[in-house]
Amino acid sequence: MHREELLNCHNRIKPYIHNTPVLSSTLLDEISGTSLVFKCENFQKMGAYKMRGATNAVLQLSDKQKNHGVVTHSSGNFAQALSLAAKNSGIDAHIVMPSNAPKVKMNAVKTYGGIIHISEPNLKGREALSKTIIEETQATFIHPSNDLNVIYGQGTAAMELLKTHPDLDVIVVPVGGGGLIAGTALAAHYFGHNCKVIGGEPFEADDAYRSLKSGKIESNTSSNTIADGLRTVLGDKNFPIIQKHVDRIIRVEETEIINAMKLIWERMKIIVEPSSAVALAAVLRKKDMFNKRKVGIVISGGNVDFTKIPF
Amino acid sequence: MHREELLNCHNRIKPYIHNTPVLSSTLLDEISGTSLVFKCENFQKMGAYKMRGATNAVLQLSDKQKNHGVVTHSSGNFAQALSLAAKNSGIDAHIVMPSNAPKVKMNAVKTYGGIIHISEPNLKGREALSKTIIEETQATFIHPSNDLNVIYGQGTAAMELLKTHPDLDVIVVPVGGGGLIAGTALAAHYFGHNCKVIGGEPFEADDAYRSLKSGKIESNTSSNTIADGLRTVLGDKNFPIIQKHVDRIIRVEETEIINAMKLIWERMKIIVEPSSAVALAAVLRKKDMFNKRKVGIVISGGNVDFTKIPF
Repeated sequence: MHREELLNCHNRIKPYIHNTPVLSSTLLDEISGTSLVFKCENFQKMGAYKMRGATNAVLQLSDKQKNHGVVTHSSGNFAQALSLAAKNSGIDAHIVMPSNAPKVKMNAVKTYGGIIHISEPNLKGREALSKTIIEETQATFIHPSNDLNVIYGQGTAAMELLKTHPDLDVIVVPVGGGGLIAGTALAAHYFGHNCKVIGGEPFEADDAYRSLKSGKIESNTSSNTIADGLRTVLGDKNFPIIQKHVDRIIRVEETEIINAMKLIWERMKIIVEPSSAVALAAVLRKKDMFNKRKVGIVISGGNVDFTKIPF
Repeated sequence: MHREELLNCHNRIKPYIHNTPVLSSTLLDEISGTSLVFKCENFQKMGAYKMRGATNAVLQLSDKQKNHGVVTHSSGNFAQALSLAAKNSGIDAHIVMPSNAPKVKMNAVKTYGGIIHISEPNLKGREALSKTIIEETQATFIHPSNDLNVIYGQGTAAMELLKTHPDLDVIVVPVGGGGLIAGTALAAHYFGHNCKVIGGEPFEADDAYRSLKSGKIESNTSSNTIADGLRTVLGDKNFPIIQKHVDRIIRVEETEIINAMKLIWERMKIIVEPSSAVALAAVLRKKDMFNKRKVGIVISGGNVDFTKIPF
C-alpha cells in the first residue's frame, strides 16, 4: 500500500516540483573514502524538499476542503512550501508564526502568498491560534512532518535518486520532525536494492536518536543547534515507519555541522543551509561505516540568511 | 581551421574536465523577461572555466617542452588552473604571483602543486621574474588569455552548451583578458545557429568596450571593480577574434554586479564569484535587448573568499 501511494504521489506532484539534479565531487569522495552522490533539493522550488510533501498534501484535499484553505504552524521551510503549494492550487494558506520569527522568513512566506498569523512564541500560543483559525475558516490543518501525505511527498526525492542511482548502499538524510527520513525509508524499502537509510542528527537536538533507543517518542532536552530545521520532534505517524525501516541515527557536533557546510560551499559551490550539512557531517564522523560504499545524501535545502554565515 | 581546432581541443581535454551542468531558474526568467540557461563552470575542476584552456595548452606541449615545465603570471583562477593541469600531466608549473596576492589564492595554488615565485607587485617586477624563470628552467610561458590554445580551450564551454541548447539566440559572458569571450565567439560562430555573443564588463574596467570602439587595444583607466577576474586587458591574439565575432560589450555598474551575484546565490543556490555575475548584470541592465530571446550565460567561476561577501 505504501508502494502504491508513493508512486501515485510522485505522479500527482510531478508537474509542480523539480526533478532536482544529482551532483558529486571527486574531492569529497577522497575526503570521505566513499562514493557520494548528492540529491540537490536546495534547487527545489522554494529552496527545499518540503515543497514535495506540502504539494502532495494540498493536492489530496477534496474540493470542499480546498474552498476553506489550509493552515499550519511553522517558522521554517514548510511555511513557505505550504504557501506556494496552496498558491499553485489557488487556495488560502494560513501560516501561524511565532512573534519572534525572523523577518526574512516572514517576508518569504508573504512572497509566496501565505497569510501570516502571529502567535505568542510558545507551543500553547501557537496551538490556541491554530485552533481559532480552524474554527473561523474550517481550514484543514497540515502538519509539517507528521502527516502521511507529507511523508509520501518527501519520499519522492529518494525515489528519483534511486531511479538514476539504483545501486546505492545507503541514503543519509538529516532528521528533524521525521517526515523526510520516514518518506526516504519507505522509498528505499520499496524502490532500493538492499538500500539502508541512516539519519544524521545534531547532539544538540537528538530526540530521534533517543526515541529509537527507548522505543517511544522522546522530546528534545536542548534545541541549541545551528541546524534550525532540525529542532522539532518526531510524531506518531512517522515514528513507527522510522522504527521499522531506519537503520540508525548518527549524532554530530555543531563544529562538525559547520565544517561539513563549509566543505559543501567551498568544494561543491552550492548553497546549503546548516540542516542540510548534517548528513555529510554524519558520513564524515563515521567514515569506517561508509568506507567504499555507494552513499546517497539528500541535500534538504538552501535557504540561508547570508548575514549569518558561520564561517 | 578554427572549427577543426575547437573539435580537436574538446576531444583532447575531455578526460580532464567536467562537462558541467546547465541550470535554469523560473524566477530569473521572470525577472529578466528572457529564457535563461546557465552553463555552470563554477562546478568545473578547480572551480572555473580556466581549467579548460590551461589543460589544452599543457596537452599541446611537445615531450621536450613538458620536461621543462610551464610558467605563467596570475594571482587568480588561471594560476590554479595551470597548476592543476600541469600536475595532471606530471610536469612543473611555475606561478609568478605579486607579493600582495591574497594568502588564500597562494594556498590554493600550492594545493594544486604549483611552484610559487613572489614578484614585486607591478608589471615590471612580474615580467622580470618570469624572464628569469624561463632562462633558468626553459619552461614554456603560457599566457592566461592571449594564447590560441587557451582560447580554444575556453571555447569548449560554449560548445557543450550549444550541443544541449542549439537554439540559443545569444550567449553572454564576462570579459576580462578576452580568452573566454574570444573562445565563446568562435564556438558560437562555428557551432551555433545565428547565435550572437555579447560581453559583460564593469564600467570600472571597461578596456574591451573602449577597444571595440577605437579599433585598437586600450588599457584600463581604472580597475577598481569587485569583479577581480576582469581587471586584465585584451591581447593581440584574442582582440582580432573579438572584433570579428563579438556583437557588443555591455558595461555594468558595481551595484548591478553585486545585485546580480546576490540574485544568483539566493535564487539559484549556487556559489558564483563576482566576475561571474557580470553577465547576468548585463542582461538585467539591457532587458529590452534580450526580451523573449533564448539566452545562454557562462557562469565563469565560483572561487569566493567567504569572509568578503559583498551583501
